[in-house]
Amino acid sequence: MNSQLIDRLLKTIGKANVLYSPEDLAVYSYDGTFAEGHPDVVVLPETTEQVSQVVRLAAETRTPIVPRGMGSGLAAGSVALPTGGIILCLTRMNHILEIDKENATVRVEAGVITADLQSAVEKLNFFYPPDPSSQRHSTIGGNVACNAGGPRCLKYGVTGDYVLGLTVVLADGQILRTGQKTIKDVTGYDLNGLFTGSEGTLCLVTEVLLRLVAKPRFAKTALAEYDSLVDASRTVNAILTAGIVPASLELMDQTAIACIEEAMHMGLQTDVAASLIIETDGTDEQTVLREIEAAARICQENGARSVKMARNEAERGNLWKARRSISPALARLAPNKMGEDITVPRSAIPEVVQRLRTISTNHGLPIAIFGHAGDGNLHPNILFDKRQPDQWEKAEKMVGEVFAASLAVGGTLSGEHGVGVMKRPYLEGALGPLSIEIQRKIKQALDPLNILNPGKIFPDKAQP
Amino acid sequence: MNSQLIDRLLKTIGKANVLYSPEDLAVYSYDGTFAEGHPDVVVLPETTEQVSQVVRLAAETRTPIVPRGMGSGLAAGSVALPTGGIILCLTRMNHILEIDKENATVRVEAGVITADLQSAVEKLNFFYPPDPSSQRHSTIGGNVACNAGGPRCLKYGVTGDYVLGLTVVLADGQILRTGQKTIKDVTGYDLNGLFTGSEGTLCLVTEVLLRLVAKPRFAKTALAEYDSLVDASRTVNAILTAGIVPASLELMDQTAIACIEEAMHMGLQTDVAASLIIETDGTDEQTVLREIEAAARICQENGARSVKMARNEAERGNLWKARRSISPALARLAPNKMGEDITVPRSAIPEVVQRLRTISTNHGLPIAIFGHAGDGNLHPNILFDKRQPDQWEKAEKMVGEVFAASLAVGGTLSGEHGVGVMKRPYLEGALGPLSIEIQRKIKQALDPLNILNPGKIFPDKAQP
Repeated sequence: MNSQLIDRLLKTIGKANVLYSPEDLAVYSYDGTFAEGHPDVVVLPETTEQVSQVVRLAAETRTPIVPRGMGSGLAAGSVALPTGGIILCLTRMNHILEIDKENATVRVEAGVITADLQSAVEKLNFFYPPDPSSQRHSTIGGNVACNAGGPRCLKYGVTGDYVLGLTVVLADGQILRTGQKTIKDVTGYDLNGLFTGSEGTLCLVTEVLLRLVAKPRFAKTALAEYDSLVDASRTVNAILTAGIVPASLELMDQTAIACIEEAMHMGLQTDVAASLIIETDGTDEQTVLREIEAAARICQENGARSVKMARNEAERGNLWKARRSISPALARLAPNKMGEDITVPRSAIPEVVQRLRTISTNHGLPIAIFGHAGDGNLHPNILFDKRQPDQWEKAEKMVGEVFAASLAVGGTLSGEHGVGVMKRPYLEGALGPLSIEIQRKIKQALDPLNILNPGKIFPDKAQP
Repeated sequence: MNSQLIDRLLKTIGKANVLYSPEDLAVYSYDGTFAEGHPDVVVLPETTEQVSQVVRLAAETRTPIVPRGMGSGLAAGSVALPTGGIILCLTRMNHILEIDKENATVRVEAGVITADLQSAVEKLNFFYPPDPSSQRHSTIGGNVACNAGGPRCLKYGVTGDYVLGLTVVLADGQILRTGQKTIKDVTGYDLNGLFTGSEGTLCLVTEVLLRLVAKPRFAKTALAEYDSLVDASRTVNAILTAGIVPASLELMDQTAIACIEEAMHMGLQTDVAASLIIETDGTDEQTVLREIEAAARICQENGARSVKMARNEAERGNLWKARRSISPALARLAPNKMGEDITVPRSAIPEVVQRLRTISTNHGLPIAIFGHAGDGNLHPNILFDKRQPDQWEKAEKMVGEVFAASLAVGGTLSGEHGVGVMKRPYLEGALGPLSIEIQRKIKQALDPLNILNPGKIFPDKAQP
């Protein structure tokens, strides 16, 4: 990149909103993965209009733009790979613009932290359900880019189920507003749906209009422990078939449980094969209670060794603390991990877990498994030590085998993280060449100069 | 169209699957609107492969293809307007291919009647919720093409919320399969979402993989009658804000109620300004009861003159019979009607109803208003006599004013019927030129020869 472009950026959006010292650039070279990609410049626009100006400059100079929120992504979608270019970081666009109580909607800038949005609406007894584990350090714009999920999405749906409208900057710098405060809309193509989950490759999202629901006033949580993972999986189906839709239905395997217990000393039984955390919620306490009791009965009928009900908020908080501590706790077993988010048909959970164990045994590296079992969305975490080159190599090989295992049982690569850079080599195996061809055509139609997050999602054409 | 193409169609998919006599063509020249468009030939393929062969022939000869199910559409999307060409009618692809009990999914051919699909899964205690009023005479393929809704969509979501995968024939005849039996999937762009609601303009849907939910075992229904439509609207918001999500929350205005009573003699009070039909459902009888009782209390707190609870299935059936009889009952007031499906922010229901009444008064033709108030999705029906040319003219003018009223309060043109031919002139007013430009680019990328349902959704370029 020539210094002329930086000069023009400085003139366009002001010195305070442009970073280009090596130290500053280094900060924006990473995300939640091992990937590293150095941008040429970082811009921190404060308005949609500024984003538009940056895109016009980028289009004129054919400079890649990589949109970014808090950089918590798990697929390297917001790292300036492989091309460098402009990191367009939206964290300064962090205003909640309007909470419409009558229509139960909220309009926010893309850089708002998801948890901040949630607290703001909860004060008014509304609820924004999607709860990616990163909710305290990820932005709603990033959530929209990846169509993020989370434990509560079993009952409540994912980010895209809440998007009513978007303000986006297109590849030529034009500003497009989609949608409005209506729940239903079939007027033309569903651009909200197309843009959500497109990982910044079709347009840059600067504002989001979201629908809200009423805040559930009661929640009940239970922990069911199993001697057999197949029994735990069977329980998941039995609960859903019975017409109970828990807010969350989380699975943890023995490796994950052992890690938590070692780190937290919570009194979890570490000899169990699997545990389920089940939560029901709603506005009527009796109903919530009846549902968790019915779920607990189903656990017992399906072979649970024990079912413990959280008796109060403190006990409930502990169960969720355990679930949320898995990722940090894994660090006690190995210095590094690669966490994936394969999604399989629910019935295939036992088989895919068996396949993951075989992969682990074959390569001699542990895989901890946990995730949103109700959605079939599992997080196999390969544990290794990056300093040992053979482990790093093995781990990379294992990732490929994890994806192959998911596809073999009718699953897919990603339920909530997106493709980014990391899953590109596996995309054709998952979708086939024709789907990729169609998607490339859409990309080409909307971003003919290929300046919006190039090198993401799609495999290089030369690549096998 | 030359007879050579008909000959090739006969050779390709067999004599029994091709119609071209004037009498046969006439049958396929209409849908649920006043529009009329004569095709040159009708093909009734029995397999996806046959659809592909027809599309290849159409592409080679640049012949428009208009996909069609039962022709119950309300926007002329399946009428061979303005170009003639091939009607591709999918009613012979009417097989339920697989019900997967473990994963709660069903795979069907596009020509399956929605109600048939529903009965088949309900026998196994599953539930396919979307319930367009046409469910007994519309196909799932048509529902997908329009992203159809219905009363139950308040709680359960619309057609698109159930689409896990599609088999589609692309504009060049290639067959693409999207999705799989997973609830979550962010691997690449959301083609399911893009294709659903695209009204046959991007691809032809031949098979659909749908997710199912558990069949609710109990339902309770109440009728609340109001002296003020504003009070009825306020109740809708109050119920939802209280965290109650009824399966349905239907509004009927005085004109609609009077029509029903005149036709059905059900003892409805015809001097009320508006009525709500509220239904709660679920798998736990106590919960369903508590919810309807809570909803009834909220009706009373918000000014309902009376709230009547259906005491048994017969009374419940009667309430729904009343709701469903609106359309035929309107025929007693006037021989013809134009039914729209505007969708507005919930808070704007009173204002838009006021505007609709003004339109009615100004032109001297009645407008009956009913619809899915919980979604803000209203069906204003303009009542007139087509034989009187001045009324026909007035009605057409009023349609434009109805759309303008919806847009003026922040609403949109269509919540469930689609754009088809009928709403094309209003699209730019609703979406703006930039959105249409982007959508045209997608259309152009996927159907460069413009053979898939041409002349639908998008206004003619020369048109104002």
